[in-house]
Amino acid sequence: MTDAPTAALLIIGNEILSGRTQDANLAFLAKYLGGLGIRFREARVVPDEEAEIVAAVNALRARYTYVFTTGGIGPTHDDITAECVATAFGLPLIRHPEAARRLEAHYAGTGMLNEARMRMANTPDGAVLIDNPVSTAPGFQIGNVFVLAGVPIIMQAMLTGIGDRLVGGPVVRTRSVLSGVPEGTFADGLRGLAVEHAGVDIGSYPAFRQGKVSTALVLRATDEAALEAAVTAVTVLLRGLGGDPVVLDGYGDTGDQASS
Amino acid sequence: MTDAPTAALLIIGNEILSGRTQDANLAFLAKYLGGLGIRFREARVVPDEEAEIVAAVNALRARYTYVFTTGGIGPTHDDITAECVATAFGLPLIRHPEAARRLEAHYAGTGMLNEARMRMANTPDGAVLIDNPVSTAPGFQIGNVFVLAGVPIIMQAMLTGIGDRLVGGPVVRTRSVLSGVPEGTFADGLRGLAVEHAGVDIGSYPAFRQGKVSTALVLRATDEAALEAAVTAVTVLLRGLGGDPVVLDGYGDTGDQASS
Repeated sequence: MTDAPTAALLIIGNEILSGRTQDANLAFLAKYLGGLGIRFREARVVPDEEAEIVAAVNALRARYTYVFTTGGIGPTHDDITAECVATAFGLPLIRHPEAARRLEAHYAGTGMLNEARMRMANTPDGAVLIDNPVSTAPGFQIGNVFVLAGVPIIMQAMLTGIGDRLVGGPVVRTRSVLSGVPEGTFADGLRGLAVEHAGVDIGSYPAFRQGKVSTALVLRATDEAALEAAVTAVTVLLRGLGGDPVVLDGYGDTGDQASS
Repeated sequence: MTDAPTAALLIIGNEILSGRTQDANLAFLAKYLGGLGIRFREARVVPDEEAEIVAAVNALRARYTYVFTTGGIGPTHDDITAECVATAFGLPLIRHPEAARRLEAHYAGTGMLNEARMRMANTPDGAVLIDNPVSTAPGFQIGNVFVLAGVPIIMQAMLTGIGDRLVGGPVVRTRSVLSGVPEGTFADGLRGLAVEHAGVDIGSYPAFRQGKVSTALVLRATDEAALEAAVTAVTVLLRGLGGDPVVLDGYGDTGDQASS
């Protein structure tokens, strides 16, 4: 899995760090990238401050195939992502002609097109626009950095519109094995099994179902045969410990807010 | 606000980066730290891999007053946080006697205490335990790093138990000003106002209420008089643009999953 393209997400916004707003973009991006065979390796949340954003953009773009940013592309003074990305790349910030044209067309006849709204047409010089079918003001791509809106419905529309710009790799396949066997009971056996099936990533997550502790084992691999062999070994282990494991494709309904 | 203590969160877990699990600890930590007057400045999500965890712990602990980690302290092979934090500090990993005693007492007579469960008593040498009133296996503190569980109910219990170890600063006070004036309409006026009231952090967030675009302006400052002056200026600005602003303490009910 090491040769697959990689990605990171930079979430820009004081509202996340204050606890006012619950991020909803990370999980959406994770699933979207998973479907393309791109490994989502890191996420960071930083405040609306130039030095923080510039440093994070540069750290992440040097390390990952793709970097996505969310937030900070609206019309107000706290929306500084475009300037910061330009600074990170050492490029001038320009008023992108096509972005300006789209905003002018969108607001034509309303009397609403002021300088603040036109700022949403600013991009680093050389950026390629990312369409915004929800509210017109575009995102943009510069190099390997994709600048998206923070509002989830807009972020999702932007992201699903740029799939053809992203080169994926082998898709990771997932199985979940649910059982009532507690983690601590199978952990010693699972440790050896994880070594034997080193090509399969095995995660163990406690779950609380109908008031009882149960466990979800999540197995992930690009190789279907290797994945099935590991699933078989896990189910044999759990049966040997008195469990009655259930195997599901993907995560089944086991996704929850808990992690161990 | 620059002299206040700062904090960062390191979320450890493949299950967050795969999109299987929605993190719920960041927002809880944000609100908890806010109440103590500690500035929450950064969050990172990294996979269950030693090199990634060690590098992130060291980057964050050098930079912030406090670092909190969540995840990776269970009994299974993918729970490697304690080892990684020990490595980050250059300390040996030991079996903490008091942690071992608690686990032995918890599992006494059940026949369930195996090596995997005892691993949950491992800490860097010199760590101070963090109580786990939910499921016994403790977290720990070493230096300025606080290692917490990933399961939200356990994380929350651990965090609220260590408030007396955290030195806070002036608490940031918050007002929200809601109106139906779109961001782009007040943005030019707000820009100047944000400069005049530089001691007040002003965030602007679109909201969608009952099918209509509205906006929440969030004003934050430690100085109550400065905050009130900025709130007054914002409401005057919005009224001048035909709005009928409503001022709420804190975030009111404006917290949502959207950010601009």
